Amino acid sequence: MGIMRLGYAHVRVTDMAEAKDHYASTLGLYETHSDTAADGAKRTFYKGWDEWDHHSLVLEEGGVGVVKYGWKVEHESDIDDIESKAKAFGLTVERMAKGENPEIGDGIRFTTPSEHVFEVYHQATAYGTEVGSHNPDAFPRHLVGVGAPALDHSLITSEDPKLMERMLTDVFGFYATERVQTSLDEDHDLVGTWMTSNNQIHQLAVIGGPQGKLHHFAFRLDSWNDVGRAADLMTMDDVPIDVTPTRHGITRGQTVYFFDPSGNRNEVFSGGYLAFPDRPTTVWTVDQIGRGIFYHSRELNERFTTVLT
Amino acid sequence: MGIMRLGYAHVRVTDMAEAKDHYASTLGLYETHSDTAADGAKRTFYKGWDEWDHHSLVLEEGGVGVVKYGWKVEHESDIDDIESKAKAFGLTVERMAKGENPEIGDGIRFTTPSEHVFEVYHQATAYGTEVGSHNPDAFPRHLVGVGAPALDHSLITSEDPKLMERMLTDVFGFYATERVQTSLDEDHDLVGTWMTSNNQIHQLAVIGGPQGKLHHFAFRLDSWNDVGRAADLMTMDDVPIDVTPTRHGITRGQTVYFFDPSGNRNEVFSGGYLAFPDRPTTVWTVDQIGRGIFYHSRELNERFTTVLT
Amino acid sequence: MGIMRLGYAHVRVTDMAEAKDHYASTLGLYETHSDTAADGAKRTFYKGWDEWDHHSLVLEEGGVGVVKYGWKVEHESDIDDIESKAKAFGLTVERMAKGENPEIGDGIRFTTPSEHVFEVYHQATAYGTEVGSHNPDAFPRHLVGVGAPALDHSLITSEDPKLMERMLTDVFGFYATERVQTSLDEDHDLVGTWMTSNNQIHQLAVIGGPQGKLHHFAFRLDSWNDVGRAADLMTMDDVPIDVTPTRHGITRGQTVYFFDPSGNRNEVFSGGYLAFPDRPTTVWTVDQIGRGIFYHSRELNERFTTVLT
Amino acid sequence: MGIMRLGYAHVRVTDMAEAKDHYASTLGLYETHSDTAADGAKRTFYKGWDEWDHHSLVLEEGGVGVVKYGWKVEHESDIDDIESKAKAFGLTVERMAKGENPEIGDGIRFTTPSEHVFEVYHQATAYGTEVGSHNPDAFPRHLVGVGAPALDHSLITSEDPKLMERMLTDVFGFYATERVQTSLDEDHDLVGTWMTSNNQIHQLAVIGGPQGKLHHFAFRLDSWNDVGRAADLMTMDDVPIDVTPTRHGITRGQTVYFFDPSGNRNEVFSGGYLAFPDRPTTVWTVDQIGRGIFYHSRELNERFTTVLT
Repeated sequence: MGIMRLGYAHVRVTDMAEAKDHYASTLGLYETHSDTAADGAKRTFYKGWDEWDHHSLVLEEGGVGVVKYGWKVEHESDIDDIESKAKAFGLTVERMAKGENPEIGDGIRFTTPSEHVFEVYHQATAYGTEVGSHNPDAFPRHLVGVGAPALDHSLITSEDPKLMERMLTDVFGFYATERVQTSLDEDHDLVGTWMTSNNQIHQLAVIGGPQGKLHHFAFRLDSWNDVGRAADLMTMDDVPIDVTPTRHGITRGQTVYFFDPSGNRNEVFSGGYLAFPDRPTTVWTVDQIGRGIFYHSRELNERFTTVLT
Repeated sequence: MGIMRLGYAHVRVTDMAEAKDHYASTLGLYETHSDTAADGAKRTFYKGWDEWDHHSLVLEEGGVGVVKYGWKVEHESDIDDIESKAKAFGLTVERMAKGENPEIGDGIRFTTPSEHVFEVYHQATAYGTEVGSHNPDAFPRHLVGVGAPALDHSLITSEDPKLMERMLTDVFGFYATERVQTSLDEDHDLVGTWMTSNNQIHQLAVIGGPQGKLHHFAFRLDSWNDVGRAADLMTMDDVPIDVTPTRHGITRGQTVYFFDPSGNRNEVFSGGYLAFPDRPTTVWTVDQIGRGIFYHSRELNERFTTVLT
Repeated sequence: MGIMRLGYAHVRVTDMAEAKDHYASTLGLYETHSDTAADGAKRTFYKGWDEWDHHSLVLEEGGVGVVKYGWKVEHESDIDDIESKAKAFGLTVERMAKGENPEIGDGIRFTTPSEHVFEVYHQATAYGTEVGSHNPDAFPRHLVGVGAPALDHSLITSEDPKLMERMLTDVFGFYATERVQTSLDEDHDLVGTWMTSNNQIHQLAVIGGPQGKLHHFAFRLDSWNDVGRAADLMTMDDVPIDVTPTRHGITRGQTVYFFDPSGNRNEVFSGGYLAFPDRPTTVWTVDQIGRGIFYHSRELNERFTTVLT
Repeated sequence: MGIMRLGYAHVRVTDMAEAKDHYASTLGLYETHSDTAADGAKRTFYKGWDEWDHHSLVLEEGGVGVVKYGWKVEHESDIDDIESKAKAFGLTVERMAKGENPEIGDGIRFTTPSEHVFEVYHQATAYGTEVGSHNPDAFPRHLVGVGAPALDHSLITSEDPKLMERMLTDVFGFYATERVQTSLDEDHDLVGTWMTSNNQIHQLAVIGGPQGKLHHFAFRLDSWNDVGRAADLMTMDDVPIDVTPTRHGITRGQTVYFFDPSGNRNEVFSGGYLAFPDRPTTVWTVDQIGRGIFYHSRELNERFTTVLT
C-alpha cells in the first residue's frame, strides 16, 4: 500500500500570535495542542474540522518555511517497507521514536534529494472530527471564517525534479498525475511533477527551484463557491492574496493563493478530478505553462515563481 | 417613471467576422438581424436569450468604441418628458424617426456632456425570449458558450463625472447607488458614480477620463459559478481576459473583464444587491478604490484604467 | 412612482421565545427592537443584514398568520396618490399616524378585497445595514446561521385572485410578471398571479384560496448554493422543511419552504430573472402547474396547497 | 492493492432507442461501440467525457436490472490474488477470456452472496478522455446535456448485507466508510453498508432487500450547482425524477435520483468527503435513517425503498 496521505505539514512562523490569528480565525482550523519544544521553540498544533487525527499542521515559532512533512501509512508494516526502499534508493534513514512528535507514533525520518525532511508514521492519536461519527451533521453548525476541512497537499522546489519524481515513485509508490515538460519528446526535461499515491489529484508537487524550499501548502475546500467566499474573507481579514480566485489548468483545481503573516504561501483548493494510476499522465509543455498554472490569465507572474520560504 | 433600462449598446468593431465569432459563439448571443447601413457599414444585431426586444447589441464595422446607447422608457410620454428635462438641462435634443434604428420606434437623440450619444425610445419590435411566454423552460435547452441572458450595464468615461451625475439625475431620474469620492468631506471631488433608475445596481457608471470613451459594457450572468465557467470558456476560445474572476467591492458584483477581438472591453457580471432609491448611497474613498474595484487583489492595474475604446 | 417595495411583514407567532430562536439564530435576522403593544401583545422587530430601514419583520405573540403588510413608497406624495386610487377602487381607507407602528411614519391603511390589511408609508427610521455605507465589506464578517440579507416577497390567498390582480394594478401600479390560468383562452379563470411594481420578479403573489390567509413570506438569498446551505442548517436546527431545495418554473427562483415554530410557512428564495413591465407576462396553464410551482418534481403536494396560516 | 475502481456497470434496458436518447442526449455520455451479442441482444457501450477506458456503461436490450459489474484492478497479479481470496471465501470463480466483453481483457467472474455477477479485470482498451492528455482544456468545449464526466458507484440489495460486507472486505479489500445499524450496540443488525477500496466515499453500497437487485448506479458531477442544473435538464427532457436535489447525510453527497426509460434508477452525485481507511466509520442508527438518506426531508419515501430493478 505505502503512503496513505500527507499527514502533517510542520512549518516555521516568525510570530506565533499573528500566525494563530491567521490559521485559527481566518482559516478556521482547530487548535488541538500547544507546547514549547525541547529547544525552546513555541509550537501550536491544528487540525481541520473534518480531520480525525490529532493534527495536520504544526506551527513552530522562529523563521519561515517548512521544517518537515509527516506521511501516514496504512499499515504498520509499510514503515519497514518504505525504509527498505529508501535505503535502496540511497537515502540515509533514521528511526523516529513515538513522542518525538506529540501524539504521533514511531517511524522513520529521512532527507529527500530536494533537502526536505520527510517523516513516515502509522499511528496518531485519534481526536475525532468536529461532526463526530454517529449520525453526524453535514458540517459543524458554527464554523469560523473559511472553515477549512482538511490539509490537502504541498508544492516544494528541487534542483532536480526528475530525481524527486523517481524517489517518490520508487520509495513512496507515488505516480505522476500531471507533468510539465520542456517538450513532448523523449529527451525532454522535467519542469514539474504532480504526484499522488491515492485518488487525490496530488499530495505533493515538485517544481524546479532551490533546494529545501516551500512554495505552498494547501487546504481543501468543497467548491468554487467556497473558494470565492474564502477570498472575500481574506479581504475582510487583510490577508495578502497572491493569486485571486482562478482555475488551474494542471489538476483543474480551483484556487486562491495567499500568504500567512510570516510570508509562507498558503492555498485553498477545490475540485480537481479523481486520480487513478491507469489514467494517462497529463502532460503540459512549457510553452503552455501559463495556461497550465493559471487557466484564466494564461500567464505566470514573477512573484509566483520566485517567492519561496 | 422615466428610463426603464439600457435597451441597446451600439458599438464599433474592426472586423465583423471576428466579432460575430466572439459575440455569437463565445458569448452565445442570438443574431436577430444583419444589414448594411446607409453609409455602407456592415451591421449585426444581437439579443441575449432572455431578452424579448429585437436587439440589445448592435455591432457596426469600422473602428472601435461606442456609437451610441439606446434607453427604453416605460411610457410613450416619457420621451417628451425627458426631452423637456434635457432641454432644461441645456442639452441639444433632436428627434429620431422610427426606423432610423431598425426595429426601433421614434424618440429623441442627444449628446451628453461626456460626449456620448444617447437615444431614448419607447417602442421596439417584440421578438420574444428563447424560452417563450407559455409554460417556459428555465433556460434554453441548447445554449451556446457562455449563454449570456441579457445586456446589463455600461461604464463610460467623462472629464466631468459630477456634471454627468447631475445630468443623469435631472434628465433621466437616475440615482447613485455607489460613489467613489476623494474624501467624505463636503467639498470632495467625485471620482466615479454608479447610477440607476430601477433596482439594477447600475445601468450606467461614469468615471473620470477622456470624453466619449467606452470602458466596458456588461452582460448579466446568474451566479459566481457562471462567472467561473465563462472564464473557462474564454480560455478555450482564446478570448483575452483583462481581469480574471473576482468580486467588486463596489456593487458587490462578481465579474470577469475581457476584450472582444476589436479591443472593446466586455464584462460578465453577476450578483450585486437590489438597488432602491432610499438606500443610503455607498461611498468609497479613493484610498480604498483598489478594494472597491477589485475586492480580492485590492489594487488597480494600469491597463484597467487606461485602456479605453 | 407608487410602491417601492414590501417594507414589512407583521405576523403572529404562538410562542415568542421559540420564534426568536428561529428568526434570529437559524435565519440570522437582527433584532432591532422589542416591546409590548397597547393590547399587551409581546412584539419583536427584525431586519436582515442588508436592510437599512428599522425593521422588515414584526412578530406579535398570539396566534398565527399575517397581521398586516407595510408597503413603502418612494415619495411622500405617493401616499395621497394611492389613497385616491384606493378610494376610487371602492376601498375604505383610514389614515395611520406616525408611531402607530414603532419607527414608521404616517400613512394609510386599508383592507384588501382578499381581507388582508395593507399599510402604506413613506418614512422609516434609518438603521443602516450591517456593512455600513463607507467602504463596506461584501457581507458581515460574522453572520449567524442562514444569514438572510432581506425580506423579499409574500404569497397570500384570496377567493378572487382576479379582483386582487385588478386592485394591485389599479391602486398599487403593479403588473403581473407571471400568471397561472385555466387556459390560454380569453375567457380563462385566473388561478394565481405574481405581481410587482419594480424589477423584483414578485413582491406579492396571490393564489385562489380562503380570504385573509398567509401562504408564506420569503427571504432573499444570493444563490442556489446558499439555498442548499440554508436547507442543511435547517436540518441541524430541526426546522421542519416543507419543500426541499428545488427550482420554481414560475419566476425561475430557487427555493426551500419551511415552517417557523408556530407553523407559518417561510421561504428562502434566490434567482428569478429581473422583471420589466414591457416583458410579455409569462402564462402557465393549470395543466402545467406542477412544473410551474415545482420545476423538478412537476407535481404539487397537498400540504403545499392546503396548509395556510 | 486489489480493486482500483468500479470499471463498468452492464445493465438491461427494455428499449435501446429510448435508452440511447437518455444516456447520450440527456446525460451526455459518449457512445464508443455498439454491437449484437452472441445471444442476439443489442448492446451499446458508453463512457463519460473524463474517462479514458473504452466504456463504463453497457446497455443490453431485454429486461431491466443489472447484468454484471466490472471491477478494474491496478496490477495483473491482483486478479489471481482476488481469485484466491474469493475461493477461500467459498465463492465459485470462473475464468473470463479476453474479448468476452468487447475491449476488456481476461480475468475472473463470480456470483456474490447477494446474487450479483462480478467480473474482475485488469486490461481495457485505452480510448482517451474527451480533453486529451496534452495541454488539455478544463472540460470539453461542447458538452451535451448533463455532461456526466464518469461513472461513480452503485447501490445493490442483498438479503444479508453483513455477509456482503464481509465478502467485500475479505475478497476485495474494501472498507466501510459509513454504515446504518439497528443500534450502536455490539449485537446490532446491519441495515446497510457503504464500501470502498480507495478515496471515493463509496464504490459499492449494499442495503437489505431482495437478492440480485439494482437500486441505482450513479454518475459523478462536480458540484451542487451541476446537480441543480442536471435536475433542470431532466425536467426539460421529461426524465422522471425520483428524488429532487438534496443532500445525503450518509456520505454528505449531493444528489438527484431519476429513472431511465426502462425504469432503472440512476443518480447524479457530487461531493462527499475523501474516504480514508483510518477514518472512523460513520455509523447511523436506523432511527436516523431518514436524515441519513435524505438530509433535508429527513424521511424515506416508500418508492425509494421498494422500487428496484
